[in-house]
Amino acid sequence: MSALLKSRVRYAPYLKKLRTPEQCVDLFKHGQYLGWSGFTGVGAPKAIPTALADHVEKNDLQGKLQFNLFVGASAGPEEGRWAENNMIIKRSPHQVGKPISAAINDGRMLFFDKHLSMFPQDLTYGYYTRFKENDLLDYTIIEATAITEDGAIVPGPAVGGSPEMLSVSDKIIIEVNTKTPSFEGIHDIDLPVNPPHRPPYLHTSVDYKTGRTAIPVDPERVVAIVESHEGDKVPANTPSDAMSRNISDNLIEFLEQEVKLGRMPYNLHPLQSGIGNIGNAVVEGLAGSNFKDLNVWTEVLQDGFLDFLESGSLNYATATSIRLTEEGFERFYANWDEFTSRLCLRSQVVSNSPEIIRRLGVIALNTPVEVDIYAHANSTNVNGSRMLNGLGGSADFLRNAKLSVMHTPSARPSKTDPTGISCIVPMATHVDQTEHDLDIIVTDIGLADLRGLAPKERAQEIINKCVHPDFKAQLQDYFDRATFYAQKKKCLHEPHILRDAFKMHINYQDNGTMKLSSWD
Amino acid sequence: MSALLKSRVRYAPYLKKLRTPEQCVDLFKHGQYLGWSGFTGVGAPKAIPTALADHVEKNDLQGKLQFNLFVGASAGPEEGRWAENNMIIKRSPHQVGKPISAAINDGRMLFFDKHLSMFPQDLTYGYYTRFKENDLLDYTIIEATAITEDGAIVPGPAVGGSPEMLSVSDKIIIEVNTKTPSFEGIHDIDLPVNPPHRPPYLHTSVDYKTGRTAIPVDPERVVAIVESHEGDKVPANTPSDAMSRNISDNLIEFLEQEVKLGRMPYNLHPLQSGIGNIGNAVVEGLAGSNFKDLNVWTEVLQDGFLDFLESGSLNYATATSIRLTEEGFERFYANWDEFTSRLCLRSQVVSNSPEIIRRLGVIALNTPVEVDIYAHANSTNVNGSRMLNGLGGSADFLRNAKLSVMHTPSARPSKTDPTGISCIVPMATHVDQTEHDLDIIVTDIGLADLRGLAPKERAQEIINKCVHPDFKAQLQDYFDRATFYAQKKKCLHEPHILRDAFKMHINYQDNGTMKLSSWD
Repeated sequence: MSALLKSRVRYAPYLKKLRTPEQCVDLFKHGQYLGWSGFTGVGAPKAIPTALADHVEKNDLQGKLQFNLFVGASAGPEEGRWAENNMIIKRSPHQVGKPISAAINDGRMLFFDKHLSMFPQDLTYGYYTRFKENDLLDYTIIEATAITEDGAIVPGPAVGGSPEMLSVSDKIIIEVNTKTPSFEGIHDIDLPVNPPHRPPYLHTSVDYKTGRTAIPVDPERVVAIVESHEGDKVPANTPSDAMSRNISDNLIEFLEQEVKLGRMPYNLHPLQSGIGNIGNAVVEGLAGSNFKDLNVWTEVLQDGFLDFLESGSLNYATATSIRLTEEGFERFYANWDEFTSRLCLRSQVVSNSPEIIRRLGVIALNTPVEVDIYAHANSTNVNGSRMLNGLGGSADFLRNAKLSVMHTPSARPSKTDPTGISCIVPMATHVDQTEHDLDIIVTDIGLADLRGLAPKERAQEIINKCVHPDFKAQLQDYFDRATFYAQKKKCLHEPHILRDAFKMHINYQDNGTMKLSSWD
Repeated sequence: MSALLKSRVRYAPYLKKLRTPEQCVDLFKHGQYLGWSGFTGVGAPKAIPTALADHVEKNDLQGKLQFNLFVGASAGPEEGRWAENNMIIKRSPHQVGKPISAAINDGRMLFFDKHLSMFPQDLTYGYYTRFKENDLLDYTIIEATAITEDGAIVPGPAVGGSPEMLSVSDKIIIEVNTKTPSFEGIHDIDLPVNPPHRPPYLHTSVDYKTGRTAIPVDPERVVAIVESHEGDKVPANTPSDAMSRNISDNLIEFLEQEVKLGRMPYNLHPLQSGIGNIGNAVVEGLAGSNFKDLNVWTEVLQDGFLDFLESGSLNYATATSIRLTEEGFERFYANWDEFTSRLCLRSQVVSNSPEIIRRLGVIALNTPVEVDIYAHANSTNVNGSRMLNGLGGSADFLRNAKLSVMHTPSARPSKTDPTGISCIVPMATHVDQTEHDLDIIVTDIGLADLRGLAPKERAQEIINKCVHPDFKAQLQDYFDRATFYAQKKKCLHEPHILRDAFKMHINYQDNGTMKLSSWD
């Protein structure tokens, strides 16, 4: 037992339960329901998932030792190995990584995505374990960076759904990560309370804290602790480029205008920003803008937020995970006191809470697969069928924000055409965000302000402001033809020609581009 | 001035502003933005809208004296006259009545529907008046049943969006309705507070009250009061029938099971129930069931709730409007003390609040136009284009409920085929509720429990349990073909064939039935 481990585990009885990861393998049986800590690739267990993957590979147990797996959002690369080895029967609520989406789309693994604010709650209702004899998770494997005197768990860089998972787990295994420093003090934990006894969340500012810094557990349920020596490995962030900087410029110009018109305070409202190069460009843009005293209420903090905090423009940031590259984590640890005085990690039920998002008036910024001319957005399924990563928290934020923004390139390359895919289509092939949820669509071409517009007005605004020039005439043509058709059929609220609504997608499937020779 | 009016208006300065409805006509100019009180056909102004419609008809001003009109939800028959006379440029967020939907679908009137919890809030943000020089409503015309000593307004049978409208109105006109009794004491009013200063709602039970029973206004803004002598006229409720009773039986059996399994308390959670014959059948079914101590947290109370309250099964009910028939209102007035001790009307921002709905764990029950095999629901647009009534509060409740239920007939008649329209389709032609929002689909055939199921599992469960026998083989065939196709294309998450996804709808448009001769 390392001295470091002993210093991190301040509740002695756990130390008697110390095992190696390999000694835990026998606890796991085919068909069990497992919870893992973790969110957006950080804070997930590593040692035991690796030992189990090794065990499966060594004994050719692919497809024979399989689990129902729940993680707050995505886990680390260990999850990819599980997918490659067909170790997952069903997974929810979110995933990232090619091996995992490949397993889903090949039909080797079931997946359902769910609002990230809702998933842990529904788990505590027994909705996802209703197929079992008891309705508990068999095991939750949780990464801790410290254990308090009363056996409570101090998570690492993610809180995620851990409080809820632990509350409905038959047995608990703790991976104490001694590679990373203790994260004690950075968390603010709300414990799950179910209706009819659920109290209000009292958060009225981004820095509100309830004061609980660890997740209490019943020590009797802890069957093993394991020392883990691996840090989180997050791929490098996609840098901003000319396209994403154009989007960011369009958006910031609009926000400045909103302040001028008195619809927002000088320091805006708390910001939610998604992952990816557009999100990064927006954060860079805001850090370099004239805005001051900004705040962030979001789901995940990335490297860009360190710059944002240091720029002096950002006062305070809160999320459920801090997903940094190795370089980012080093920088974070080196300035621990400075950074942790201005940020806080909460459970995903709280970071993504509709209640708090609406109360604070959050500005939500997300990237879709596609949006349609009436402002429905597809966040998940290419051509209505092929799963990317899942819904995530997009709908928690976009439905409840004061200002709901979808930012997207106007077009993307297909294999054969540099602008073969229009991100604006006649009808979204899958709808995750409805026309009732979006205020603003912004592309590299321009910004469409949809607030208070009827569907036909929205369509014209989006075509005028956002569509790539290669698709402008084509989409105008669809809209004009649909309007003409709807005039005859007396259905002019939201004109569509069902026969043609997916013609651009079908042409892409057949010919590699959404550019049509004709609508006829 | 009638003695009755004088007794109702306890703030004397208003009485100096008494006018006839006709004397108010000149205040209104083409293009103005108007707010009306009212929700689901009750509590809307009547005298001035009638005077204006008379004025337009008498002077052939159809299409020349037009307004942008905002009402909490639907108003009374006066609104239908406005639509017939082309007096509405744009309308939001909800409407009921053939003349109004005809005007929308004929293209004579613009309409946008919006979550009813969100609409009043977005109005106070200036989002819907951003096209004007000042961002205020020009007039709010509000029906009152009394005026307090400080000039505050006691609404009638609906609170709706009135507090928010009044807060952003340049001028206010009050219609004091002396036909109906004063509703003083039945309301509990929360006033709008916008971010960054918005506090939590502290409601932790259906009968929680803040204690404010009238809506304060700045008396300076009140430019006229008018006496109104017309009561609300609500059409008779659609009675339950064999089909809707089958649905209700299936649902109640399921709820009993949920209690047995410990996923709900013996008295369930607060219920939200929509308008229509299925909603009525469910309320009848619950009133006649073994459930006791039930509570209701909903948007609108109808005649059936009077029986429900008298049955002894229902403890307390709260909504934003009480929409009774004339007979129902008489019964209500006759037992005023008994009924009003057990119900309360709130603003729609509160009755439909995501925050409170989630906290209380509401059971949401709504009827869609159609649902698809993966559990997306269309609540608004027939064939993706033809507007019925609008979204209403369906998504406020279904997104945030502990248990989200869509109830629908398995099939409806077309003009030529008694089961020509399947209410379950391969792909919804318009999506208002996403697959991430629905737990249960129940039809007259049976109940599909979708909690924790992946999309392909959901499809099979819905086809097995809910689809009308006339469509079962056809939908199974679509699903099998889509799965086969998706196997080749490696997109097995949510199999679809875009070419065929709307084939049943197109066949209905062309041939009057969704029954296909073949999928080829």
